[in-house]
Amino acid sequence: MGRDVQQRRRGIPAALCLGLLLFAASAVWAQSDPLPSWNDGTAKQSIVTFIRTVTERASPQFVPPEQRIATFDNDGTLWAEQPIYFQFAFALARVKALAPKHPEWKTKQPFKAVLDGDMKALAASGEKGMFQLLIATHTGMTTEEFTKTVVDWIGTAQHPRFKRPYTDLVYQPMVELLAHLRANGFKTYIVSGGTVEFMRPWTERIYGIPPEQVVGTSFVTTFKLETDGKPVLLRQPKIDYIDDGPGKPVSIQKFIGRRPVLAFGNSDGDQQMLQWTAAGDGARFMGLVHHTDAVREWAYDRQSHVGRLDKALDEAKRRGWTVVDMKADWKKIFAFE
Amino acid sequence: MGRDVQQRRRGIPAALCLGLLLFAASAVWAQSDPLPSWNDGTAKQSIVTFIRTVTERASPQFVPPEQRIATFDNDGTLWAEQPIYFQFAFALARVKALAPKHPEWKTKQPFKAVLDGDMKALAASGEKGMFQLLIATHTGMTTEEFTKTVVDWIGTAQHPRFKRPYTDLVYQPMVELLAHLRANGFKTYIVSGGTVEFMRPWTERIYGIPPEQVVGTSFVTTFKLETDGKPVLLRQPKIDYIDDGPGKPVSIQKFIGRRPVLAFGNSDGDQQMLQWTAAGDGARFMGLVHHTDAVREWAYDRQSHVGRLDKALDEAKRRGWTVVDMKADWKKIFAFE
Repeated sequence: MGRDVQQRRRGIPAALCLGLLLFAASAVWAQSDPLPSWNDGTAKQSIVTFIRTVTERASPQFVPPEQRIATFDNDGTLWAEQPIYFQFAFALARVKALAPKHPEWKTKQPFKAVLDGDMKALAASGEKGMFQLLIATHTGMTTEEFTKTVVDWIGTAQHPRFKRPYTDLVYQPMVELLAHLRANGFKTYIVSGGTVEFMRPWTERIYGIPPEQVVGTSFVTTFKLETDGKPVLLRQPKIDYIDDGPGKPVSIQKFIGRRPVLAFGNSDGDQQMLQWTAAGDGARFMGLVHHTDAVREWAYDRQSHVGRLDKALDEAKRRGWTVVDMKADWKKIFAFE
Repeated sequence: MGRDVQQRRRGIPAALCLGLLLFAASAVWAQSDPLPSWNDGTAKQSIVTFIRTVTERASPQFVPPEQRIATFDNDGTLWAEQPIYFQFAFALARVKALAPKHPEWKTKQPFKAVLDGDMKALAASGEKGMFQLLIATHTGMTTEEFTKTVVDWIGTAQHPRFKRPYTDLVYQPMVELLAHLRANGFKTYIVSGGTVEFMRPWTERIYGIPPEQVVGTSFVTTFKLETDGKPVLLRQPKIDYIDDGPGKPVSIQKFIGRRPVLAFGNSDGDQQMLQWTAAGDGARFMGLVHHTDAVREWAYDRQSHVGRLDKALDEAKRRGWTVVDMKADWKKIFAFE
């Protein structure tokens, strides 16, 4: 056996060994990266740095665990909102399901438009028409009856583009962020313009956010003892509170009573929540999801009828808030990809 | 050495040993009794049994931790409420503090009555007068300014009978119960007729209940960007929601979104919260604090102007809810005793 062969014999295991080490190291890194669906970049970096800044005991900007409140918008921030808000898709399905009990809807707008599938006439009914549909499908029953209609729909309905349950359209990077925040002692909340009882039946399963940490638009509800003595809560055909725009910091104060340390939104409806968060003492994180990926999701901002992002985008750029470029910053958008 | 002495020599250490064992056992028992300020009796027994029933994995009535919601009234349930609601004492103190800025109060009821210390005229102003005082002292400022007035008052004001801070008048047995519930995976909430932002500044320190788990009566609040761009929340002179009677189950649904497994109150204002709790599936615990100790605290129920307990007491007796007899069931009422 010559020297070359001997060297080669010693050399092969050494290379193998190095390879195995590198493999092991990358596996450990992959395991320890709490945000694997985020591409490396300024957005991911700003999140990771912020969380470290407020959770490391030695940090001058340390925030005690009980003050670690994080609030998230839902539509367009935690799950998709195109081509229409998913709650609105639920309302349209409910109109169709309830139509046999409402023969008058055949000739009455905006119901006629829904039953005829006439999206132009539906759009023409505007915000007033949307509220009529919400009232007709979300109220006039007990809280338990309403919850059942949500659970049935969310378990069976499919998104028109992706042909999957709507709950498959949650953003995997944001689900990872929610979990990472909780692992760092944060209490994660939803603060949404959507109605609260449409979200509560599934947020715990999908996001790990329990019902008591979901804040949203609400209907007036009343207590009644039925003739058999059974108490029920009745959903009345009247909006109680619209949790959008300036309504968001107000409801944060009302439901949580602490100012968030971190807030994430995606539209002008989140601007005041981010302003309120930013105005607190010490380190704060303000984030916006910018929908920039027409291929994997949708691309829209200043001109969109859903989730318009215009003034808040300007303020984010002016003040250095984190704007997540969905196309560039998210390695994976949906878990099923 | 005779036999007697030998026996005695063997006997003494044995008796000592037994004594030490008994001492050790009682020490362990005292340490392990999570409700030391409760006398042994049916009330304590019903609480201990209930908690075991819903938390032991093998129990047919096991309740998963995330569903362990416990709601407590505040005034008269967690702390005293005599001779007047403590929040009302705060309002009176604020009227006096604000009087120099309101010369018109010298001649205007109910303010004149407060400034003159004329409790008869004050009582004559009734509920309308009370709301006028609340509005004048609890609104017209930012949320942060209001919180500061509460913190200042609660840190300095003294109860007229006990000459101690109002926060000393929390019921030690209930503080133990709150801690015991949390140790068993319960989330403890306050659901009070008192206003929410009067309670939040001190509930965490006194009861271990964080601001986000305090539900109460609220004032309309609005968001405003000041001219320097700083966002503020302004407390408007208008009641938003009265969290009392049938309002309590409604606000439980709105803020928590789950039906409590355990609820505790002390007055007719808690009756619907207890009815709503009782109507849930599986094991439920409904409790009422009955003020029966005129010596250590106060004795009142059906005729009281504060914390009237009449219809709810009848329903409790009819349905077997737990009625805590303060005099008999509480070994210690206040920690300072």
